[in-house]
Amino acid sequence: MKIRFYNARILTMKDGEEIYEGEVWTADEKLSYVGTKPETITETFDREIDCRGNVIMPGFKNAHTHSGMTAMRSYADDLPLQEWLETKIFPLEAKMSGEDCYELSKLAVLEYLQSGVTAVFDMYLAPYDIAKCAIDTGMKFVQVSGINKFGPSVEEMEKRYLEINGKSPLSYFKIGFHAEYTCDLELLKKIAELAHKYKQPMWAHNSETRAEVDGCLERYGKTPTELMDSLGMFEYGGGGYHCVHMTDNDIEIFKKRGLIVVSNPGSNTKLASGIAPIQRFLDAGVPIAIGTDGPSSNNCLDMFREMFLVTGLAKLETKNASAVDGLEVLKMATVNGAKAMGLDDADVLEKGKEADLIMIDLHQPNMQPLNNIAKNIVYSGSKQNVALTMVHGKILYENGEFFIGEDPEEIYEKANEIIRRLSA
Amino acid sequence: MKIRFYNARILTMKDGEEIYEGEVWTADEKLSYVGTKPETITETFDREIDCRGNVIMPGFKNAHTHSGMTAMRSYADDLPLQEWLETKIFPLEAKMSGEDCYELSKLAVLEYLQSGVTAVFDMYLAPYDIAKCAIDTGMKFVQVSGINKFGPSVEEMEKRYLEINGKSPLSYFKIGFHAEYTCDLELLKKIAELAHKYKQPMWAHNSETRAEVDGCLERYGKTPTELMDSLGMFEYGGGGYHCVHMTDNDIEIFKKRGLIVVSNPGSNTKLASGIAPIQRFLDAGVPIAIGTDGPSSNNCLDMFREMFLVTGLAKLETKNASAVDGLEVLKMATVNGAKAMGLDDADVLEKGKEADLIMIDLHQPNMQPLNNIAKNIVYSGSKQNVALTMVHGKILYENGEFFIGEDPEEIYEKANEIIRRLSA
Repeated sequence: MKIRFYNARILTMKDGEEIYEGEVWTADEKLSYVGTKPETITETFDREIDCRGNVIMPGFKNAHTHSGMTAMRSYADDLPLQEWLETKIFPLEAKMSGEDCYELSKLAVLEYLQSGVTAVFDMYLAPYDIAKCAIDTGMKFVQVSGINKFGPSVEEMEKRYLEINGKSPLSYFKIGFHAEYTCDLELLKKIAELAHKYKQPMWAHNSETRAEVDGCLERYGKTPTELMDSLGMFEYGGGGYHCVHMTDNDIEIFKKRGLIVVSNPGSNTKLASGIAPIQRFLDAGVPIAIGTDGPSSNNCLDMFREMFLVTGLAKLETKNASAVDGLEVLKMATVNGAKAMGLDDADVLEKGKEADLIMIDLHQPNMQPLNNIAKNIVYSGSKQNVALTMVHGKILYENGEFFIGEDPEEIYEKANEIIRRLSA
Repeated sequence: MKIRFYNARILTMKDGEEIYEGEVWTADEKLSYVGTKPETITETFDREIDCRGNVIMPGFKNAHTHSGMTAMRSYADDLPLQEWLETKIFPLEAKMSGEDCYELSKLAVLEYLQSGVTAVFDMYLAPYDIAKCAIDTGMKFVQVSGINKFGPSVEEMEKRYLEINGKSPLSYFKIGFHAEYTCDLELLKKIAELAHKYKQPMWAHNSETRAEVDGCLERYGKTPTELMDSLGMFEYGGGGYHCVHMTDNDIEIFKKRGLIVVSNPGSNTKLASGIAPIQRFLDAGVPIAIGTDGPSSNNCLDMFREMFLVTGLAKLETKNASAVDGLEVLKMATVNGAKAMGLDDADVLEKGKEADLIMIDLHQPNMQPLNNIAKNIVYSGSKQNVALTMVHGKILYENGEFFIGEDPEEIYEKANEIIRRLSA
């Protein structure tokens, strides 16, 4: 399938490249041309899309989420974190089947597509079912293991790692664990060994709350970052989700090990976890990616809200309106996300890269006038500006319609059935 | 024109009323029926709209904005407040004509409609042109005077007050001024006299930044709230925009005088002004309304973003995830906004009230499953959920299309022409 996007504004997200008028062509899952309009075009296409001056840019990478938690969206708002988790979320999750996870992840896929997300870094129950969801819907899922002392075992994680990877360019599985506070030392050591065996990066929730860091200090005399580093977990890179309560030494370790922070400001805000020190990360040269976290703590899977919050909260925290430039944020939400997820060919628009792209509709009032399009995507953009989402060469969302092989209404109905059953 | 909305979920926003399945009928500019489906319907309608289970609720009231600033959206992001104002905004505004204001306000109207806003509390240049914009587009504008020591005079404000009010149910003008720091004492006293003469409430920017409060304390030994109160400005109520840096005594004055806080968290965040003490206002029983502020500081005119920020920032500030309940926020964005603007008949859905309503599309992934619809509008809602906006009995926006008497593309073109000319 060859598609030509013409009459577009191209935002490649390559360093130093500004928006320019041009074209993007795709051939199956790859970009076959990115540039100004060629003088003569001999190529033939299956479809030619007049972009009417709209922006074509890389899709957003949602670098931390729990897709299957859609069932619990607005199931328990306005509760303190521990009460929310222990009395509302855990009891439901205990009853959730693999098939439930599959259906609930499909609901999340709809929302990702509507928000211009072309790949997600997902941590949840039932990885085989989630891999099936990726392949069935066409969305790109990089899963990360969320094991903890309640299960599954490191051996099972290894099995998943070996079995899920290599089956489809839409589905990946990475070594990781839930968080220090849900693991014991012996388990953490075994997880570190596995990362060494396969020379893989390490990912986990890290320093999301003050209580988490204090607990770790009490148990080990080390912050979560220091503990993980002391166990050799970061030999092959990786990073942490949330990273709200970070010491200078934690940031130094991230810098030294080439780790990536995945910030989740919507969730950190709604759960009152705190404001991540984004400007300090930037000053230290630590790359930042952005994730929505799960829909029961956020409640939406909307990278536009997250982008505004990343820079907005940094401006508030530093009392400086020029902190964390909007363009920097756009890079976090695209290029850095791809880097975190190991999707090295889905980061920028360039010939030969994977065709994971979105069209941003500028023919909307919140995008007018056209003073600074790239920054305005961060400061004013919304899901309603996403006119088209293409994942791995396939258009999965266009002008409000979904093309994932199932009627959204059926997916909504199943999600409602599941939460009724789980909460009964 | 009689319109029937049936098969709907009704959220009247009346105290203590939960969402229920029912119907809303409109007859010209009024609501003629709000309730469950009657057993027999003898009434005939010009149009019957099947809401497919979607929510019908009062439109949002954007209780503080500067609509005409759309030209400067993303014109100067990521700058400190003073530099932004003095080097970027003021020089452009000096060149702006009344006609420019008219066109730029039209652009804002498009965005309001898309965000489910049915009335705005607007402060900007050229009130007669803005009143014309209200009448021409069908949007409800309650303007407030923004006079200051650079102009216009109190006499001109009085003329506007007398001439703009009473002409159209879509257009109102209230007594007010820009802010303490742009007025001198003599001017403030004359403004107070005018409010007394007409027994009118008083509105102004108040305690938006730390520097503003410190400057006032230095000049008068009083905070802006204390100064205004000491001048008798609040004898007939009113309130303040922003109210970020408020003392206990300021809050006490607001309580005692029955004043309303209009919070603008998006702008306060982007300009690093600070977090308004929403929980303290609530604890003191001071009502809060919500506004977007102008599009050059926000950058979007999106009440959904503001609603999330009002509660989210309060949760962060108080380190308490249960601070400022989502339902409370929905009331701020609707009922309290109407109260602030003096639109006593546009607050809730009830027979005889004005037909200012919106339809929220629940057939979207971010609204599913249906666990707590009202709270989820606050925590997950987005412009893309607004299926229909009706102002004063007229549908001005439906399924992505605008009905304000002009092609949006023409409005976009004019806005681009204006900013090119102003910044030349």
